[in-house]
Amino acid sequence: MYRSRLARCQKLMSEREIDILFLAPGPNMYYLSGFLEEPGERLLSLIVPQSGEPLFIVPQMYEQQVKAFTWVEKLVSWRDSEDPKTVLSATIRQVVTKRPTIAVDNRMWSQFLLMLLAVFPDARYLDAASVMNLLRIKKTSEEVALMARSAEIADAAFTETVKECREGMTEHQVAAKIVNEMRILGADSVSFEPVTGSGPNGALPHYRSGDRKLQRGDLVVLDYGCVYRGYFSDITRTIAVGSCDDERRKVYSIVRSAQEKAYQAAVEGIEAQSVDKVAREIIEAAGYGQFFVHRTGHGIGLEVHEEPYIVAGNSMKLDDGMAFSIEPGIYLPGKFGVRIEDIVVIQAGKAERLNKCTRELVVV
Amino acid sequence: MYRSRLARCQKLMSEREIDILFLAPGPNMYYLSGFLEEPGERLLSLIVPQSGEPLFIVPQMYEQQVKAFTWVEKLVSWRDSEDPKTVLSATIRQVVTKRPTIAVDNRMWSQFLLMLLAVFPDARYLDAASVMNLLRIKKTSEEVALMARSAEIADAAFTETVKECREGMTEHQVAAKIVNEMRILGADSVSFEPVTGSGPNGALPHYRSGDRKLQRGDLVVLDYGCVYRGYFSDITRTIAVGSCDDERRKVYSIVRSAQEKAYQAAVEGIEAQSVDKVAREIIEAAGYGQFFVHRTGHGIGLEVHEEPYIVAGNSMKLDDGMAFSIEPGIYLPGKFGVRIEDIVVIQAGKAERLNKCTRELVVV
Repeated sequence: MYRSRLARCQKLMSEREIDILFLAPGPNMYYLSGFLEEPGERLLSLIVPQSGEPLFIVPQMYEQQVKAFTWVEKLVSWRDSEDPKTVLSATIRQVVTKRPTIAVDNRMWSQFLLMLLAVFPDARYLDAASVMNLLRIKKTSEEVALMARSAEIADAAFTETVKECREGMTEHQVAAKIVNEMRILGADSVSFEPVTGSGPNGALPHYRSGDRKLQRGDLVVLDYGCVYRGYFSDITRTIAVGSCDDERRKVYSIVRSAQEKAYQAAVEGIEAQSVDKVAREIIEAAGYGQFFVHRTGHGIGLEVHEEPYIVAGNSMKLDDGMAFSIEPGIYLPGKFGVRIEDIVVIQAGKAERLNKCTRELVVV
Repeated sequence: MYRSRLARCQKLMSEREIDILFLAPGPNMYYLSGFLEEPGERLLSLIVPQSGEPLFIVPQMYEQQVKAFTWVEKLVSWRDSEDPKTVLSATIRQVVTKRPTIAVDNRMWSQFLLMLLAVFPDARYLDAASVMNLLRIKKTSEEVALMARSAEIADAAFTETVKECREGMTEHQVAAKIVNEMRILGADSVSFEPVTGSGPNGALPHYRSGDRKLQRGDLVVLDYGCVYRGYFSDITRTIAVGSCDDERRKVYSIVRSAQEKAYQAAVEGIEAQSVDKVAREIIEAAGYGQFFVHRTGHGIGLEVHEEPYIVAGNSMKLDDGMAFSIEPGIYLPGKFGVRIEDIVVIQAGKAERLNKCTRELVVV
């Protein structure tokens, strides 16, 4: 599997005249090498030449560990007392002699790109996303199976959490419950710190959680996910505490309808922006257009946000194997927010939801 | 507080002839602005000019949220359907007219530095760490208080977790227990995915956790921490399951002695590398030098790893307010590992431990 990914990668590099990929710990390194690690301040990089074998530059303390998880055989290690810039420079000079074109991992910490700029000021620098996103955008059935398991864990955490959610609990306690359920079910980590925005906090789309207690009449936006063997899930449900007034029910119903219609519109061959348009038009027609302040969705896989983005201006055509979120929302500043999100994968020409838990309004 | 940090920052920028700081979501942005967020694929940046007011570039959906958490008044927002490169270019051109010197957040994702390189190919680029690390390296008493609370949560999680750790539990279950305890106690997130390396897995210094079950006679390396209001904790304890043979006890005792002696050596005015040397010499004298494959410690605060690094070659003198780990270890490949780590802060001339839980070998 890794050999075939490498071959496709090097073919794209050749077409784009890229001499070297300079990759950092994260999804791109994992996709090509099998080694998964968080970014850190020590230089740990996978160098992929346009032809021939890739190689790792690793801090000595990671040597055993990288070897245990990757098929890549070439490995250069450096000690904490050495200057990694020297190792980087020598390694890249072995691969290329002329003025190189280097594609840099979009998520690599800038300190390493600055290190490279100091060593090769005249190189041409590109974003490695131009290659890696093309490779990663269409998921294989093995990848979809892992994503489905990741979504299933997130679904189960919702079902378990709402059983215990009550007026008086803090947002923080709700978040702790969600995270613990996902870990018990086998999640390796969280996709991001959960959003448990209650009442007016729900109107901040990327609020996380705080000490506010759930109050009767609140809507609470729960947006979270987990990582399972490298693959991300991401789900949003909005629940009501104790009761739900007419205005909140109305907004909920508009968002639910927008989400459903966008889901039905997501078929092979249509442009990503068309899915956004479907959701947006429903919310605009209901008079809430100005309160839907974000795109309708984002691709997902080894990153929580990746291509394809479901956003105005993106004319990319949806294709089998593409996985993305559909998550319209309405945010009334100072009052409340509603968002409903599922991950879908295009399979046999149409979108299939990976998240199966209820989209009915749950009142706890 | 933020005004005084900004003044110190701009003074350093002036001394170093830096026109602009280009900061990303993370510790540097939080330190200067009060706004704490994880990095993401949308351009969200704090631009600090050498004189005058800083300003935020934010995705529109973050506008309310940034305003709610920062004292910074100037804010430029962009919509998902716009090109952030245009906004970035226009914003920076308003601040500087000549060829600028731009210091880039060391942790900013490279995609944003590549975006900047495309707009200002002739600018001089530096690492913003040269300024930000100087500001952040000496903690105030308010910062130490938050770090002490963060450490206290980590300590309590150890005490609670070992009560339930038993032969037959998986590493993953131990990690889930640790994380849940920290969240219940008020942690906002984890410092990093916990290390719960049992038996031979303990010999991989940065192993995380897996499905291996704890076995009688194992040593288990527990290395984890939490984030409390932006401040990181980090602790390592090594425990034994059921029983502990003589070789493991001996190695434990060497590591414990190295950790204690390094702690006593950490006083104001001595070089960071001297602390490393003290720990290393004890382990070398015991014949395990080649198995101590990493530095003795790292600074900590708004990042889990920051300056000062306790490593050979670092002649930085320890000073009041500096916070760092002391964490010698011995790793016998294929057999087991031992590491003991506390966070200390230099106060009134000498190191004080923030971690108070037992360093005696706990057998569960």
